[in-house]
Amino acid sequence: MQHGATTAEVERVVAVVRELGYEARPMPGAQRTAIGIVGNDGRVDSSRIAALSGVQEIIHVTQPYKQVSREWRPESTVVTIAPGVSFGGNDIPVIAGPCSVESEEQILESARIVARAGGTALRGGAFKPRSSPYSFQGLGKEGLKLLALARAETGLPIVTEAMDDEGAHLVAEVADCIQIGARNMQNYSLLKTVGKIGKPVLLKRGMAATITDLLLSAEYILSEGNGQVILCERGVRSFDPSSRNMFDLTAIPTVHKLSHLPIVGDPSHGTGIRDKVTPMARAALAAGADGLIVEMHPHPDSARSDGAQSLYPDQFQALIGELRAVAIAIKA
Amino acid sequence: MQHGATTAEVERVVAVVRELGYEARPMPGAQRTAIGIVGNDGRVDSSRIAALSGVQEIIHVTQPYKQVSREWRPESTVVTIAPGVSFGGNDIPVIAGPCSVESEEQILESARIVARAGGTALRGGAFKPRSSPYSFQGLGKEGLKLLALARAETGLPIVTEAMDDEGAHLVAEVADCIQIGARNMQNYSLLKTVGKIGKPVLLKRGMAATITDLLLSAEYILSEGNGQVILCERGVRSFDPSSRNMFDLTAIPTVHKLSHLPIVGDPSHGTGIRDKVTPMARAALAAGADGLIVEMHPHPDSARSDGAQSLYPDQFQALIGELRAVAIAIKA
Amino acid sequence: MQHGATTAEVERVVAVVRELGYEARPMPGAQRTAIGIVGNDGRVDSSRIAALSGVQEIIHVTQPYKQVSREWRPESTVVTIAPGVSFGGNDIPVIAGPCSVESEEQILESARIVARAGGTALRGGAFKPRSSPYSFQGLGKEGLKLLALARAETGLPIVTEAMDDEGAHLVAEVADCIQIGARNMQNYSLLKTVGKIGKPVLLKRGMAATITDLLLSAEYILSEGNGQVILCERGVRSFDPSSRNMFDLTAIPTVHKLSHLPIVGDPSHGTGIRDKVTPMARAALAAGADGLIVEMHPHPDSARSDGAQSLYPDQFQALIGELRAVAIAIKA
Amino acid sequence: MQHGATTAEVERVVAVVRELGYEARPMPGAQRTAIGIVGNDGRVDSSRIAALSGVQEIIHVTQPYKQVSREWRPESTVVTIAPGVSFGGNDIPVIAGPCSVESEEQILESARIVARAGGTALRGGAFKPRSSPYSFQGLGKEGLKLLALARAETGLPIVTEAMDDEGAHLVAEVADCIQIGARNMQNYSLLKTVGKIGKPVLLKRGMAATITDLLLSAEYILSEGNGQVILCERGVRSFDPSSRNMFDLTAIPTVHKLSHLPIVGDPSHGTGIRDKVTPMARAALAAGADGLIVEMHPHPDSARSDGAQSLYPDQFQALIGELRAVAIAIKA
Repeated sequence: MQHGATTAEVERVVAVVRELGYEARPMPGAQRTAIGIVGNDGRVDSSRIAALSGVQEIIHVTQPYKQVSREWRPESTVVTIAPGVSFGGNDIPVIAGPCSVESEEQILESARIVARAGGTALRGGAFKPRSSPYSFQGLGKEGLKLLALARAETGLPIVTEAMDDEGAHLVAEVADCIQIGARNMQNYSLLKTVGKIGKPVLLKRGMAATITDLLLSAEYILSEGNGQVILCERGVRSFDPSSRNMFDLTAIPTVHKLSHLPIVGDPSHGTGIRDKVTPMARAALAAGADGLIVEMHPHPDSARSDGAQSLYPDQFQALIGELRAVAIAIKA
Repeated sequence: MQHGATTAEVERVVAVVRELGYEARPMPGAQRTAIGIVGNDGRVDSSRIAALSGVQEIIHVTQPYKQVSREWRPESTVVTIAPGVSFGGNDIPVIAGPCSVESEEQILESARIVARAGGTALRGGAFKPRSSPYSFQGLGKEGLKLLALARAETGLPIVTEAMDDEGAHLVAEVADCIQIGARNMQNYSLLKTVGKIGKPVLLKRGMAATITDLLLSAEYILSEGNGQVILCERGVRSFDPSSRNMFDLTAIPTVHKLSHLPIVGDPSHGTGIRDKVTPMARAALAAGADGLIVEMHPHPDSARSDGAQSLYPDQFQALIGELRAVAIAIKA
Repeated sequence: MQHGATTAEVERVVAVVRELGYEARPMPGAQRTAIGIVGNDGRVDSSRIAALSGVQEIIHVTQPYKQVSREWRPESTVVTIAPGVSFGGNDIPVIAGPCSVESEEQILESARIVARAGGTALRGGAFKPRSSPYSFQGLGKEGLKLLALARAETGLPIVTEAMDDEGAHLVAEVADCIQIGARNMQNYSLLKTVGKIGKPVLLKRGMAATITDLLLSAEYILSEGNGQVILCERGVRSFDPSSRNMFDLTAIPTVHKLSHLPIVGDPSHGTGIRDKVTPMARAALAAGADGLIVEMHPHPDSARSDGAQSLYPDQFQALIGELRAVAIAIKA
Repeated sequence: MQHGATTAEVERVVAVVRELGYEARPMPGAQRTAIGIVGNDGRVDSSRIAALSGVQEIIHVTQPYKQVSREWRPESTVVTIAPGVSFGGNDIPVIAGPCSVESEEQILESARIVARAGGTALRGGAFKPRSSPYSFQGLGKEGLKLLALARAETGLPIVTEAMDDEGAHLVAEVADCIQIGARNMQNYSLLKTVGKIGKPVLLKRGMAATITDLLLSAEYILSEGNGQVILCERGVRSFDPSSRNMFDLTAIPTVHKLSHLPIVGDPSHGTGIRDKVTPMARAALAAGADGLIVEMHPHPDSARSDGAQSLYPDQFQALIGELRAVAIAIKA
């Protein structure tokens, strides 16, 4: 309550809290009166209380999410997208591949390089969200077929993005894990759809999403009955143009403390610059990431999107070696 | 190019630029060589060039959008959502109403208050994007029917949000203007859908969207043939918890310089605090806004969402009076 | 406390709070136990408690500042820098002039233009904080002499920046109001020095300072016995390169609610672009600013610093007229 | 230049550029004319040009700093603060100790723990910059004496902060390395002072400083003839309250590319939460940091400042072990 709030104002807040079905516990202090809300199950909509006269501030003590929280489920969730490819357990899977599927030759060549170097899954966009309507938007259904071909040849499971409800069903027919991109992290219709589909989901953090926002978006998927969610830190917007995004690696131990869900790092979008990908992939792992997703292109110079942040094949191979060494070091 | 880039590297960049169909113009300098790309129509995907050896940085001189730009169309666009309700002309329309449609009584009472006070259009969400799956999500189709009732009684045109493709078609049957919310500003499927529908669109700026991003999202709608777009500044994420968002009013003159589209201000979401709405509504107008959208609720204390930022009816009436005075002052 | 905190952990927190001299009030809830700290005078250093086992989060209910707060002093402070030039009362003083004092001719010409157009005080830097050591750093003591000349001729009081303790004493000999720049907002030595000097201070908000940070920095000055502080919103860092800073006008009503000190707006630094200065000056006033500080240069094309954001003399004259109209509108 | 800039406007810009002593090279394009500035030595003040009619935008191709850049000096600088304690070479020194020097017993106990665990240098503030004037401000000169005692006993070199010119001289008498805190990163008087003193400097990144800003502040020190500068990433302000700051580890490889100066990571301030310090220290190292600075307190529960982010002695000992393993992994 504000300094100087009247007894009547305090009583009105207490009455409204009770009307909402909770217990209200006033706590008068030297400067102002605080009112505790007890019996709250995490679903109180505070705006009605904030609107009352004499109220200074609403302070949330209970987290607004539930099923994603570690308090709800203490043991870590392991999400398995294909036999032997699990996130949240002892392995550190590496999802790799080009930004977009461009052609049969390109995606098959990519898949072979990923498999040969020791990557664990293949990424590649068939549907691409692009800031400009004039940028390449992906091959669509044709791209999905090519991804299936690449899996058939290499055995690598497929992670690819869905941008809308219709696309989610198409992607689900082919992909082993459906990616929800940063721009759609709060597209709640899409979250509910992939929640209902029930396949594993890779949920990327939005460009200005707090960790709480990310966990609430995951809660949308879990509340539809799909617990197979892998979170992904991919950088947020910042004031510094020296990298494309600010790669917030503290998100990794923070998510591990608050939630039982696994989280992977995306150093390609997290930095946007090829020569930063390897050091920041190592750093993500050292921070405790449950896996990585990196862009690799057989010929980055001629990539139709995100060429500047895609690793060359030999850089990718070297990266896998470095990651193994770091993984051993931090598990020792 | 980087300091020390070799002649071969410079030549390769020149070759790639030409391969992409543009003219390349090297410009050797004291410290490094710059290469100009000429004949660029605004659609160059720079990532392929950025990936080449020896390249330091890609600098965009041409804006990446086209149809939304004032260079493309120098005169301001006037968007008319109903007879006598136009944005971008001489009037300053005020869209007002509750965050959500809650009941027939609530929306009719709201509409009457808005109309009586001199508001120009009625807002009210039937489909509500909420961070938590456990918050009230709106009345859906039933809410749309109630909005139509409110229009029938008061004559106020309706502005209401669509969250997905299916919802967009439902909203389009009733609304005079379809709102795209901040969380969906980069939901490109939805942007294309409302572009095809062809009704006026109110496009809200995303929480971490630059002005360029906002204009590119509008470009998606225009590129589908729908030029009836009203932009909306509603605050962006910032480091300061003292308000819900940071209301970036400089966006208004910036959009006016870069684009021919009208832009309105939303001080309710821009600040998130009732007692900041009136001063910031005045400020938006003084910055040159083509209109306002504000939350007003007949009984904010019992609102099911955003109660804390909704004006009381008498505050709304006072606001309309203040806005008239400011409008006269800045047009004098 | 964390969910699952033991009774022993709760008791330890209670013991530490009591050891610090406050009363602790545990409040067990459905999900976790909260512990209220009562008798707090605003000076509790929370880090000791945050460090205890079982503590989830420290939530500050009481503001950390005191003398600057409106709870401490309900009536608005009026700061008078010269006879007839007051901030926080009924007038809207406009401080104007060039970024830097460059020559006798330049500053005298500036002062004459400001006075003739109806400006209230003269700004102009003798000591300039510049990001690069190779940029023009101001004329120093010579600049102060030229400012005194300009005052002698026009009668305009002088507002100019001090960058260090030595400079503060030099500036205090000449200036009517000592400016503390954004980069020095948390230079506590300097704040204490100007607190002791006792002359009016114009304190600019730092580039990433919250409103709480700004008020705490002002508290440093007040706690040395100098209550003559004018705050200044001048834009903060953001992710959007479309303007030099993000001009946070909501800061104005926020400061007015929390503090009794006056606050002015600086649309020149707030936007960094000449053609945005006039609309944003109007907007600052409409948001409730107690005055303005704007850059005006007799010949912006040849200014030695900040030329791009300085108004031309005729633009300044037009601005003063527009501000008068807005001031009348919002006071009506 | 703007689309539609006249020939006269282009010519005027060319004339001004020449007047400033550079060569101007106009490059007419399909949409607009660009004008290259050649012969630029990194010190052009662009504001004069930006102010000219018809100019759309100034784009900096050359970096604004010089002596700190790797183009100026390709080999990495090694800064030695005491015999055997070097930053930028093959070692990974760890500076550790309490936030503040609180008493002889506390600092001696801290130093012994640091030395025994394998730490390389002792930190501890004698002069403390605190947001609130009512927080503990450090022991001042007495604190410096205690630091000297701790060095005498353990042999650990001392890193401690200076907040103003007077303090810098006092600190220089005792410290092996003078720390400039985040809040003073752009206190140019202080930067010049420590530049003149000539002792090694640990320069922390400001809360909203870009990498360019950080390097420019270092340039102030180098331009006074002191090349012994260690940079420090310590987190920046962000919109997410889940950690105290956003720890921007990409800054580390970015600085390494742009500059020859060493850079260390400060995971204590970078995260603000004890249980995040160890994973983020590992991550900083994996990102390529040239050392670390961490807060460790013999009894964090009773620390007078920053207790919540200080490691317990046993956690610090474990950290040193983990860092060794990571260091071996990434150098292998």
